[in-house]
This record gives sequence, structure tokens and C-alpha cells, in this order.
Amino acid sequence: MYIGVDLGGTNIKYGQVSAQGELRELRSKPTQSHEGPERVIQRIGDCIEELLGENDDPNQVRGIGIGTPGPLDFSSGIVYEAPNLNGWKNIPLRDHIQNRFQLPTIIENDANVAVFGEWMSGSGQGSRNMLGITLGTGVGGGIIIDGQLYRGTNGTAGEFGHMTLFPNGLLCGCGNHGCLEMYASGSALVRLAREAIETDSTTMLTKMIEGDVTRLTAHLVHIAMQNGDALATHLIHTLAENLGIAIASLINVFNPEIISLSGGVANAGEDLFGPLRDVVKKRAFQRPVEHVRIVQAQLVGEAGVIGAAGLAKQYCQGSAAA
Amino acid sequence: MYIGVDLGGTNIKYGQVSAQGELRELRSKPTQSHEGPERVIQRIGDCIEELLGENDDPNQVRGIGIGTPGPLDFSSGIVYEAPNLNGWKNIPLRDHIQNRFQLPTIIENDANVAVFGEWMSGSGQGSRNMLGITLGTGVGGGIIIDGQLYRGTNGTAGEFGHMTLFPNGLLCGCGNHGCLEMYASGSALVRLAREAIETDSTTMLTKMIEGDVTRLTAHLVHIAMQNGDALATHLIHTLAENLGIAIASLINVFNPEIISLSGGVANAGEDLFGPLRDVVKKRAFQRPVEHVRIVQAQLVGEAGVIGAAGLAKQYCQGSAAA
Repeated sequence: MYIGVDLGGTNIKYGQVSAQGELRELRSKPTQSHEGPERVIQRIGDCIEELLGENDDPNQVRGIGIGTPGPLDFSSGIVYEAPNLNGWKNIPLRDHIQNRFQLPTIIENDANVAVFGEWMSGSGQGSRNMLGITLGTGVGGGIIIDGQLYRGTNGTAGEFGHMTLFPNGLLCGCGNHGCLEMYASGSALVRLAREAIETDSTTMLTKMIEGDVTRLTAHLVHIAMQNGDALATHLIHTLAENLGIAIASLINVFNPEIISLSGGVANAGEDLFGPLRDVVKKRAFQRPVEHVRIVQAQLVGEAGVIGAAGLAKQYCQGSAAA
Repeated sequence: MYIGVDLGGTNIKYGQVSAQGELRELRSKPTQSHEGPERVIQRIGDCIEELLGENDDPNQVRGIGIGTPGPLDFSSGIVYEAPNLNGWKNIPLRDHIQNRFQLPTIIENDANVAVFGEWMSGSGQGSRNMLGITLGTGVGGGIIIDGQLYRGTNGTAGEFGHMTLFPNGLLCGCGNHGCLEMYASGSALVRLAREAIETDSTTMLTKMIEGDVTRLTAHLVHIAMQNGDALATHLIHTLAENLGIAIASLINVFNPEIISLSGGVANAGEDLFGPLRDVVKKRAFQRPVEHVRIVQAQLVGEAGVIGAAGLAKQYCQGSAAA
């Protein structure tokens, strides 16, 4: 067994995962990040101790994997910073945990562990090459090449949200103009809806939010589309078009077997995937398009824990082989 | 030693390459592709025989690698088609050569062998992750991940020229709109120059080509820039800007150590690379930009032969290990 931990700004999710990638039971504790890094690390350790204590044979657990938000260094095990966690700056998280439990431990960023989990036990099972794209507050992602997580030279690979879609487009938080994230994230959908309903008197969205624009969500826009709302349909089709342009580029560059989409926007299902596939077919090369499957992620909420444990397993096996 | 062959529409280049990636002597024969595939395959075999005959010990050669234009299947060794070679349709090139010489043989597309050669013995030496981009008639490329050529699921990975740069841009030969190739290839530079000189009365390009627009080349535009020509400078800076947008996206996605540019346009050297790096710095994430080197390829003309031999070596060693 391997222990997977998915450290988030709100909750710490954790669980034991078999070598075959099966999660025994998903558990969760509030992160309480306001208490600072030391207490949060203590709490992560307590989660691990809780799991270890439940095994008849504590030696059954071979390693620990932790997914954390923000940039980090895999080889030194240091979290450089974590935007959603108070006071996290250059924290040697890996060594804290490894020293406490004397078990091989790895840390990896949360987008990468989620994609690795989805590859191991979700929509990517059995594939060699897969791209995972998360359409949430931002647009993140991860890359699996030949059954391995591809981290890049500094661990920053997979930032699909910051591919330039429109060179003269909207200013992105990263400093670039026209990033995909500005057009295809859940936040982008909400922002575009908010702008559009100001001048659209026919959309049912106005009624649905009862005059309170802060109630707008990607989910609500999709419900309006399902009820035949023209504006909502237009917004989701435009998002599909923009996302399709970027995915067609990724298909020409990566020639992957699977592209797996997760996050709130992906929950629109075929209402999104249908028009998306049409755009991709028009723009990408025929041969790689014929061989790629663009699918919705399957492991909602569990991917991070499974992926963190899976990376711990791969790390342990790699170390054993080396 | 390994034998490398680089099959082109005009010439067959070939040579012996040491296990360390050193090319002994580059040779070349006309392809005479009009004679059809059978005669061309015979000729490739004759090149190989010529090299084998010069070794004191013919067993010194361990394998043969052949780079060919057009799509192919690595595992079956079949060339699906080769746009610049008459009558090439589903040709089992690998087996023809392997049967004649009873030596392990691999085939790979010409863009990939060139990038692999450049990684082994040129600008990519010592790196783990590299992207090679060729700015020639079109824009092609190849991907090295963790010291291995990344082929993708069907061997079509690395088509950087068909990333969408302007979603509503020029119609590309591939059917997509706004492909990078339409803005950053040598042909694109010549086309843009041709259009521009019609309305620009001050450029020295008009005089340089003596009224014959078919004389326009990427090299000529660069010479005009070196002589202070405003139009030529504008054209190369615009190309650098457009290429920089795409390269910034690739840096955010791949976080590579090296991006190596080859082909006619890359010969503009710092006149291209200077403004290109400025654009990349403005658009890509800071950490991966700090760690990437954007450089000119070093192995002009030899990269294909070296890379083909190198892939043969990697294949032989992989087979031996398995």
C-alpha cells in the first residue's frame, strides 16, 4: 500500500492506495491554513499516522506521496510557495514527513498528481501518452509521456492555460496577453456571462441569479443551455471553440492517445465535448485526430490522492531498480 | 559504428557514425527519385554497401538508421508516403534494407532524425529535454524528452508549424487557419517580403532582386536588414515576434532546457534571436524562461545522418537490454 495526500487550501484529503491504484477510502480534514505551515505539516502527519495505525502490519505501507499547490522542487522536496496556504515559503515538506515516518516520501504539485491519478485509475488507464487539462478557476494541466509524469526541467511543465490563444487578447494575470485561461476557465465563463447579461434582455440567466451576479457559476450557465437559453448556448459554444483551437495545437504537437478534461466546465459533458470535437477535427491533422480520445475525467475528487500515492509507488520502484 | 542515411528528395546523404555520435565523413549521392522507389531503395543499399566495404571488420557496424521524408510507421518500418519522392506509397523500406544486410535497421521521419542528431552531437548535447524547430519551406520540429525521441502515438508528434498562432488568420495548406508556419517559415518571410515591396518604394530589396521577385530569399531579406533596410528589419522583427509567441507557449507547456532553431531563417542569427528572446521573456513564465536556452542549431546538413545513426544505436541497445 501507498499513502496519498492531497493538500488543498481548504481541505487535506488522504487515503491508502493499493499498488494497483485502488483507493481504499477517501478521507478529508480541514487544512486550517491560517494556523501556519508548522501546524499544517503536523496535521498532514497526523493524517498519515491515522492511516498507518489502521494496518495490521505497519510495514505494509511502502511510501508516501503528497500533492501540494504551487511551485516546488521535486528533487529537494521543497515547496517554494503555495498561494492558498498562509506563510508557505521554501518549506522542506518532504523531509519533515520523511523524517517523522522513515518512509520514502515524494511531493509533487497538485495539477500533476491529479493527472497522474487520472492516468493510473481513471480515463487514462492503459494509455502511454496523455494530456490532462483542468478547467477550473484557472486552466492547469499535466503531461504523461510513455507512462511517466513529465515534469519538465524545473517541474513547471503542463501549463496549458498559458498557451497564447489570441496574441493581442486580454491581459492575463501571468503578464501575457490572450492566454487560453482567459477564455476557457470556469472563471472566464462566469466573467463572460456577467458581461453578456448586462446587454442581453432575453436570457433566463438574469432571472436565475435573481439580480445577484455573484450567483453566476459555470454550472448555472450550463443549466440555462440545457433549457434552451440562446446566450448560455452561445457562451459554451464559444468556450468550446476557443478550447478546441488550443487542443488542436496540442494534438499536432503531442499526438497523444487521450486528452482528459476535468474541472467544473468539463461537467457540461457532451454539450461541451460535441462542439469541441468538431473544432478539433477541423483544425488538427487527420491522423492524430483519428487516434486521440477527448474525454471527461472520471475520478472527481479522488484523482489527487490516487496520483500522489501512485507517484510514491513509481518513485519507490525506480529507487529499488536503480 | 552505426550507419546513418538521410533520404531527401534531391540527395541521399550517408555516413558512418561512432557510438559517441561522431560522423566519420559525410557523403552524398543524387536520389534520382524519378526512377521510382525500387531503384531508390537499391541506391540506398548501395550507399550502405559502400560504407560496409570500407571497414576492415564488417561486424564493426551494429545497425542502420534511415531518415525519410513524410509520414511512416516506426514499428512496422513502412513509409506511408513521401511527398518529394515519386511513387512512394506504403513502402516497407526498413525490411528491404534489413533483409539485404542482416543488420538491425530503423526508419524515422527526417525532422525527427535531424532533431535527435542535433541533441546528440550539436546544440542539445548534455540536455535531457529539448525542442528542435526547423524554419525552412515549412516549420517542422521534434521533441526530446528525457534523452529519448518522443514520437507520439502515431509518430506525428512535433508539428510545431501547425500550432494555431492567429485563430482567424491565413488559411494553411493543412486546412487550419493561422498556423505558425504561415508566419514564421522561410517561405512565409519571402511571401511577406514580396507583398510588402509592392507598396514600399524605399526598400533596397527592390534593387537587390533587379525587378525579379523570384529572386527573393530569406537570406536576401537578412542581408537587407544588415544594411539598415527598414522594411527588411520590420519583416524579420515581425517574424521574431510571431515565432516568440509560439515559443513562449511551448516553454510554458514543455519547460525545456534547450530550444534549437535550424533552417534558413535561423541563419539570421542574433538579428532574429535577440528580438525573439525579448518577446519570449515578456510572454512566458519567469522560472522556465530563466532555465531555457534558445539557440541556433550547430550541425547544418549533418544532423540527419548523425541522428539516424544515433536512433539505430539507441534501438540496438534497447533491444539488447530487453
